[in-house]
Amino acid sequence: MENELLELREKLGEISDLESSLALLSWDQQTYMPPKGAAARGRQQATISALAHQMLTSPEMGERLQRLHESRDELSDDDRALVDVAFYDYKRTACLPGDFIVELTLAQSSGYEAWVAARKNIDFPSFLPCLEKLIDLAKRKAEYHGYEGSPYNALLEDFERGMTAEQLDSIFGELSLRQSNLVGKITASSNQPDTTWLDRNWPEQSQLDFTLLLLRDMGFDFDAGRQDLAQHPFTTSFSLHDVRLTTRTSRNDLFSCLTGSIHEGGHGLYEQGFHESDARTPLAKCASLGIHESQARAWENIIGRSLPFWRHYAPLFLKHLDSDPAKISADQIFRAINHVRPSLVRVEADECTYNLHIILRYEIERALLEGKMAAGEIPEAWNARMKELLDIEVPDDASGCLQDIHWSVGLFGYFPTYALGNLYAAQMFEQIEKDLPNLWTEVEAGQFDGLLGWLRRNVHLHGRRKLAPRIIYDSTGSEPSSKAYLRYIEAKYGKLYNL
Amino acid sequence: MENELLELREKLGEISDLESSLALLSWDQQTYMPPKGAAARGRQQATISALAHQMLTSPEMGERLQRLHESRDELSDDDRALVDVAFYDYKRTACLPGDFIVELTLAQSSGYEAWVAARKNIDFPSFLPCLEKLIDLAKRKAEYHGYEGSPYNALLEDFERGMTAEQLDSIFGELSLRQSNLVGKITASSNQPDTTWLDRNWPEQSQLDFTLLLLRDMGFDFDAGRQDLAQHPFTTSFSLHDVRLTTRTSRNDLFSCLTGSIHEGGHGLYEQGFHESDARTPLAKCASLGIHESQARAWENIIGRSLPFWRHYAPLFLKHLDSDPAKISADQIFRAINHVRPSLVRVEADECTYNLHIILRYEIERALLEGKMAAGEIPEAWNARMKELLDIEVPDDASGCLQDIHWSVGLFGYFPTYALGNLYAAQMFEQIEKDLPNLWTEVEAGQFDGLLGWLRRNVHLHGRRKLAPRIIYDSTGSEPSSKAYLRYIEAKYGKLYNL
Repeated sequence: MENELLELREKLGEISDLESSLALLSWDQQTYMPPKGAAARGRQQATISALAHQMLTSPEMGERLQRLHESRDELSDDDRALVDVAFYDYKRTACLPGDFIVELTLAQSSGYEAWVAARKNIDFPSFLPCLEKLIDLAKRKAEYHGYEGSPYNALLEDFERGMTAEQLDSIFGELSLRQSNLVGKITASSNQPDTTWLDRNWPEQSQLDFTLLLLRDMGFDFDAGRQDLAQHPFTTSFSLHDVRLTTRTSRNDLFSCLTGSIHEGGHGLYEQGFHESDARTPLAKCASLGIHESQARAWENIIGRSLPFWRHYAPLFLKHLDSDPAKISADQIFRAINHVRPSLVRVEADECTYNLHIILRYEIERALLEGKMAAGEIPEAWNARMKELLDIEVPDDASGCLQDIHWSVGLFGYFPTYALGNLYAAQMFEQIEKDLPNLWTEVEAGQFDGLLGWLRRNVHLHGRRKLAPRIIYDSTGSEPSSKAYLRYIEAKYGKLYNL
Repeated sequence: MENELLELREKLGEISDLESSLALLSWDQQTYMPPKGAAARGRQQATISALAHQMLTSPEMGERLQRLHESRDELSDDDRALVDVAFYDYKRTACLPGDFIVELTLAQSSGYEAWVAARKNIDFPSFLPCLEKLIDLAKRKAEYHGYEGSPYNALLEDFERGMTAEQLDSIFGELSLRQSNLVGKITASSNQPDTTWLDRNWPEQSQLDFTLLLLRDMGFDFDAGRQDLAQHPFTTSFSLHDVRLTTRTSRNDLFSCLTGSIHEGGHGLYEQGFHESDARTPLAKCASLGIHESQARAWENIIGRSLPFWRHYAPLFLKHLDSDPAKISADQIFRAINHVRPSLVRVEADECTYNLHIILRYEIERALLEGKMAAGEIPEAWNARMKELLDIEVPDDASGCLQDIHWSVGLFGYFPTYALGNLYAAQMFEQIEKDLPNLWTEVEAGQFDGLLGWLRRNVHLHGRRKLAPRIIYDSTGSEPSSKAYLRYIEAKYGKLYNL
């Protein structure tokens, strides 16, 4: 058995090496690759990805995992965790037939092309056949995986294992009502922030320089990672000692680079925080996308959009930007960076409206998967729900149901993880405030060691040893819910808008 | 057979994808990777490299190539060239037993560590056991490959296939005498250049900006490549549409970034110049390292250190550097950039002394391989030959026989390619001047289309279809020799130094 374990670790290590190389191919593609490099890059990715898939789903791998799994009670805790996760990955991947994967890959590729064109030409009908095909494939995928309750559960599991559509209904139900209600009150409030001072050009290099200082304060290890520019910010890693953040700057948006960098920094701290001894194994990965997002949102919103944070950083930030700290106060920035404005586009949504965009998508994709809505009905359903939730008229599908890439590449069940990230973060922070009574004094001093230590112990170090609901329960004493989050936004924005 | 060819191309394509990924892992390691990423990177490289090796040396690959090779007369020219090159690579790689490769890899790794320490502590004896082991392994490698004449030929073939030690003797014999003689006369000349004006700080960003302009003029396609900073400049590529140059700047050395970038640009143009239809096959590679070097040296020295070049670029260069073009003339730069000074270190050697450093190394490594010199005798032989060839006293082994990395990682037979690059370049230029009567007028106008076209047609597009001696013969009408090179330096430096 000792030998079986050694060989398993060796093979999983090789798979991890291939995945890391794939991540580098993709990072380079989005940061430094010259435009004409794209075609060859696609083939390189396909080759490495196929090799990793072959290794993971090989009969030897399956048989070895089967044998080890049968003896799992005799294994050490670490070995058992590894065998469980690897066996799960094996079964999850091997149950999809090869020709189904080919069909899916082709449909994703045509879906993406059709979506790009449809969005450009504001022509949903031209995208519809591809979308229908992708929904059909998603349903078939759910059948291959098997599920209890809704077929949506089979898809959700790829991104948020341990969570179910039934739980989401109960979590999102109260959330959508109360959050929508709060947004309505905010919009109607006469106490709106002054944001006219934001309307100028802000030096881009200075924005960038400031994010480096901030990421260092947060605890991001620049000897084990870096930040580069990319068109669409993302975080990736090639090992826990090599984590790559990306960001972008905008001359006339003071906050987008800053909040983007803090967000990716939160992701990056998670990736730098796995257990050293889990390196090169599938345990050194996130518990779920919702947990990953919670780390990003905690830093971006709960910390980075807080008044104590700005009491410390306002003068530093303004000095970097060659602005006079005497003329712009921490409070002024705090109000402006928390400006709530219902808007059409998810990725531009503020903290207070964001979840509503997600709930809308979740409702639609779930109805599609359960056969309760036809793909052709999406635009109407989308626009009606935007009106209900955010009181917004959608002028056209490009800024409506065609705005996101996800469905075009067959990603159904992914959206809820964005909202769960917000909820998990708020739930953790209620506990963190209890566990670390000096939290906000430390934040106001630009010190985050205590906070990072809490996240390391309760989230990062576990890697995939616990599922998301378990991480939440063990660290906060409650099941995932929207309660803490609602308390958080109602308190914060009630005060900000004098409600 | 059609099918066999398709499958061969598919497999070779996958091997090429792995090699490109490996090249990216290495590029990133030398440009952007954070320091702590090194350990994981090493494992990623080992995994991908082992997979590529397995694919290339698999029995199926060998049998397929054997069958195709037997029917090579029935193949199209392109297919035959591909089968020949792939079969050669297969045999060359597969003849080395697996445990020999492991032994060699370990010896290279310890050799490198020992060399780093020995160089730092100026302690050749501490490096000696590793070096002896590596020489022994090199001899065994030669036996595995087989050879005619000197065992050195078997090693030389890895870098300069088609060239033999016997030919090198005849080429280097006259070269060392006449070049050493020329250097002696230059050193004794009273007509030395004024270089005092170089002694100041030159803005590094401006040095870099100028290289980008220059590379563009040379014809380097920045939509299919880029230039980044690295500690030791190199060129690599992930496809002919994605070629990566690197360079470095030095505040107090006006020419190192410039000449380094032109040199790597020459390499890069070669990598961008392979035939489109050879992409993802082993035909889209250099004919030999000597040919690769000839492209770098042609641009760096014959063009970049010529008076017509500086007549065009001096004002542009000086303007970039915020210097007054009225105060520094093209002639002044031309003289300074061709300043000949015998020195201890190969990588800092000027155009006129460089080959002598190579010949010294060639003589020693050949004697080692043929058993005519023991490794322990290297320091004495080195220092004596430095005195003879360059009239220089070597103060210690760190600036003597421990200066180069090559032997420490088992690279024997590599050094001659540097000198051959210089000779090939000069030989080509004698022909280019005949074929392109306006060459120097064009250079003086900053136009290189004619030159690049000649190199594309006569060198780049052939990839590995021709061996180095064939490329030289077909493009110049003569076998490789030192004649053109000696004519070139004797004329150029005779004039510069009034000899």
